[in-house]
Amino acid sequence: MTYYQKLTAHFAKLDRFNHLAAVCGWDQATMMPTGGNQARGEAMAELALHIHQLRTAPQLADWLSEAKEETLSIIEAANLREMTRSWQQATVIPDDLVQAKSLAGSRCEHAWRTQRANNDWQGFSTHFAEVVSLSQQEAQIRAQANNCSAYDAMLDLYEPGVDSAQLDGLFGDMKTWLTPLTQQIIEKQQSEQFIQPSGLFAVEQQQALGKYAMALLGFDFNHGRLDISSHPFCGGTPSDVRITTRYDESDFVQSLMGIIHETGHARYEQGLPKSLAGQPAGFARSMGLHESQSLFFEMQLGRSDAFISALTANIQRVFPHIDKAMLSEQNLLKLYTRVQPGFIRVDADEVTYPAHVMLRYEIERDLMNQKISYRDVPDLWQHKMQAYLGVDTAGNFKDGCMQDIHWTDGSFGYFPSYTLGAMYAAQFMAAIKSVIDVNQCIQTGDLAAIFAWLESHIWQKGSIMTTAELIKHATGESLNVEHFRLHLQSRYL
Amino acid sequence: MTYYQKLTAHFAKLDRFNHLAAVCGWDQATMMPTGGNQARGEAMAELALHIHQLRTAPQLADWLSEAKEETLSIIEAANLREMTRSWQQATVIPDDLVQAKSLAGSRCEHAWRTQRANNDWQGFSTHFAEVVSLSQQEAQIRAQANNCSAYDAMLDLYEPGVDSAQLDGLFGDMKTWLTPLTQQIIEKQQSEQFIQPSGLFAVEQQQALGKYAMALLGFDFNHGRLDISSHPFCGGTPSDVRITTRYDESDFVQSLMGIIHETGHARYEQGLPKSLAGQPAGFARSMGLHESQSLFFEMQLGRSDAFISALTANIQRVFPHIDKAMLSEQNLLKLYTRVQPGFIRVDADEVTYPAHVMLRYEIERDLMNQKISYRDVPDLWQHKMQAYLGVDTAGNFKDGCMQDIHWTDGSFGYFPSYTLGAMYAAQFMAAIKSVIDVNQCIQTGDLAAIFAWLESHIWQKGSIMTTAELIKHATGESLNVEHFRLHLQSRYL
Repeated sequence: MTYYQKLTAHFAKLDRFNHLAAVCGWDQATMMPTGGNQARGEAMAELALHIHQLRTAPQLADWLSEAKEETLSIIEAANLREMTRSWQQATVIPDDLVQAKSLAGSRCEHAWRTQRANNDWQGFSTHFAEVVSLSQQEAQIRAQANNCSAYDAMLDLYEPGVDSAQLDGLFGDMKTWLTPLTQQIIEKQQSEQFIQPSGLFAVEQQQALGKYAMALLGFDFNHGRLDISSHPFCGGTPSDVRITTRYDESDFVQSLMGIIHETGHARYEQGLPKSLAGQPAGFARSMGLHESQSLFFEMQLGRSDAFISALTANIQRVFPHIDKAMLSEQNLLKLYTRVQPGFIRVDADEVTYPAHVMLRYEIERDLMNQKISYRDVPDLWQHKMQAYLGVDTAGNFKDGCMQDIHWTDGSFGYFPSYTLGAMYAAQFMAAIKSVIDVNQCIQTGDLAAIFAWLESHIWQKGSIMTTAELIKHATGESLNVEHFRLHLQSRYL
Repeated sequence: MTYYQKLTAHFAKLDRFNHLAAVCGWDQATMMPTGGNQARGEAMAELALHIHQLRTAPQLADWLSEAKEETLSIIEAANLREMTRSWQQATVIPDDLVQAKSLAGSRCEHAWRTQRANNDWQGFSTHFAEVVSLSQQEAQIRAQANNCSAYDAMLDLYEPGVDSAQLDGLFGDMKTWLTPLTQQIIEKQQSEQFIQPSGLFAVEQQQALGKYAMALLGFDFNHGRLDISSHPFCGGTPSDVRITTRYDESDFVQSLMGIIHETGHARYEQGLPKSLAGQPAGFARSMGLHESQSLFFEMQLGRSDAFISALTANIQRVFPHIDKAMLSEQNLLKLYTRVQPGFIRVDADEVTYPAHVMLRYEIERDLMNQKISYRDVPDLWQHKMQAYLGVDTAGNFKDGCMQDIHWTDGSFGYFPSYTLGAMYAAQFMAAIKSVIDVNQCIQTGDLAAIFAWLESHIWQKGSIMTTAELIKHATGESLNVEHFRLHLQSRYL
């Protein structure tokens, strides 16, 4: 047995334990009765420890360096590169720091659930200070190992290959046109008439509609499910992908588009290369690329004129008791393309969303690089919300800097993925439109050609290439924010 | 840290991995789409191996013998006894035999699913021969370790403390009266008129009825769920007990009583001592005692006149479109106490059920003790079915010796638990009736006193006492088959 083979066996084992964690995590969010939570938490912590031990197993250092000397195919070499990355990320942080951060994160998140409701920044800030400090320590250790800035080292956990120099460029460009564009769109939409949904949209009916959209979008129900959870997510494993949504019986609009979003995540997972199942090179490439698939499904396909038009008849069929004017194609299209600056990132439309991300990026970058203190966050938030979106959050912490869960457990570096995903998605759509008549595919209900492109250019690539290579290979150019700008302009102006 | 403390930490860890196995096993049977099965199977096999490694960890031999010398409370000593038992059971069989039996069992079970449908004894017998042979090897090794007969060693896996000498006595007694009693009951019931259910009993309505019965029987929905699977079972963990049923929309009778049966299993698990959670002394005592709780709920409570009477109004309310005569108390009572010898054990009523078990007991005992060959099974089956139930199974293997899954994977020694459970249940009810007015409890819908008795005498005992001690302590006497005979006589004659 070669060292490379030993490694693939080890990582296959690791993947099987990750499979168990995915199933039990999904169950916890969707099925578990409240009273089961303590024992489940203990069982999952035990499993997380075991997974950490497998990721940092002492023999791996030798095996990885020995395997480097073996003759490997391009794919095997990519797999070894990803194994090394996984091992390095897990080993570089001392166990006591891992544990301290995990405990501080749990404490902060737990308290945050109440403190956010009470708009209690003072109370929150003591826990938050601890999480920031431990995350700064983590970032510094990773930075030393990666020979980069502290923030770039955190960014690398979610979006390998992207650094803040690149983000400064991308977001800097976007800043020059996003605010005026948003203003223009709002002015244009000001005179638009539309009807807000009202009436009873029963869960069963919404579920039927959601499953119809999933089927249309090629979701494989033999390898996945749709369920309910309070925070929608895509979980499970590539051969059994579990997506969730939440239903509001007074409005189906959000839930339907939420399902379409998660279906994009799901198809990426379902489409990963089976020949590399369980191996790091067979995993989804990055958080940003994952988000590009959900946003491709939601923003590029789902909210397009053609797609809304294709869904309209079915929406009317599922809700026969609802006023047809409210469910007309024209009205649905307006509902699904409404632009409105607001406090909350997760409720934002695709035009204002990037501003929420830029703001978080600038704050978390400077926090990790120790250029600002956790105390500066509310003022910076207020200042930037005013500048980017004209929104006043002074004193409103709960709809301001306390709105997201990400910083409570120290996931600094995650936020940029959302907007990178939107940019990737627009660039993919531009590339697809140069070879496929997308509107015609949607009108005829046959999206196969679009999915075939995504499958061969993205899903089947797993983590074999770097993100930059994948983008270039798929679209013929490096990440170019211009596609995103053109997409917004053509849809909204 | 004492050795005993080291052991409790080790067994707590083991329990947390068993928790993961229980959740993922439940998911596999209830939620998982078909396409997820291969990866799930691999993940669960990996987990089973890890659990086996924990059960046989090399340090345990020392720790167990050192802990024996430490000063322990009665409960701690019981826990140590159960730890030792678990360790010995897992370590005594060589790993290659464990693996060979597991593979042969999978092969046999897989082929059986088709062979049973085709009534193919010839095909089945080649796989079955292999399973019998490997189980005989296992039984001999266990027998040597336990200093008992081969069959008794297998029995000990499911019903510790019970041996074939005791079973020969219990079943020998039963044989003298069960066949004539069955005959008498059938004659008595021959002239009875009753109406078979017909109409549509929608799944949602049956589910509502089932949950009503579960609530009446004290099932804690904060620590459990009801779902659907093709083979009903009770799974999960004590703080999150998952029971399942299957629904036939043309008949609600079986599903309702199935739910009541599983609720008995569930309440035992929910009622286990929290102070011993995750420790072997805190587990359910035995398969027979587990079955005693499901049969107490189903047979002693569920099918009693008083309970059927108490359920009738709700049954009528849930199915308002169904003929009231069919759902009358008198008719329901007849449906729920109909006695009819038949081929299939799982469909048998409580009067004929023990004959199915005695037959299997006599055959599996002689198989493990190598007094008969696997080739003798069909003829013995035919002969005993004729003698005990007057049923002819000649040539009908699929409804004869090929009907159960138990022998396909070598679970020899399991069957007696079912009838031991029925005997324990009758004895518990006799003891309860000597201190509680059970009918009045049921009539007033307040079963709390009955559950309090079960909780304090059985559930809260976990595995602290042996089964024999528990029975004696709870009922004032050793297992006495007379209670079961009197129960049948008073209900059916």
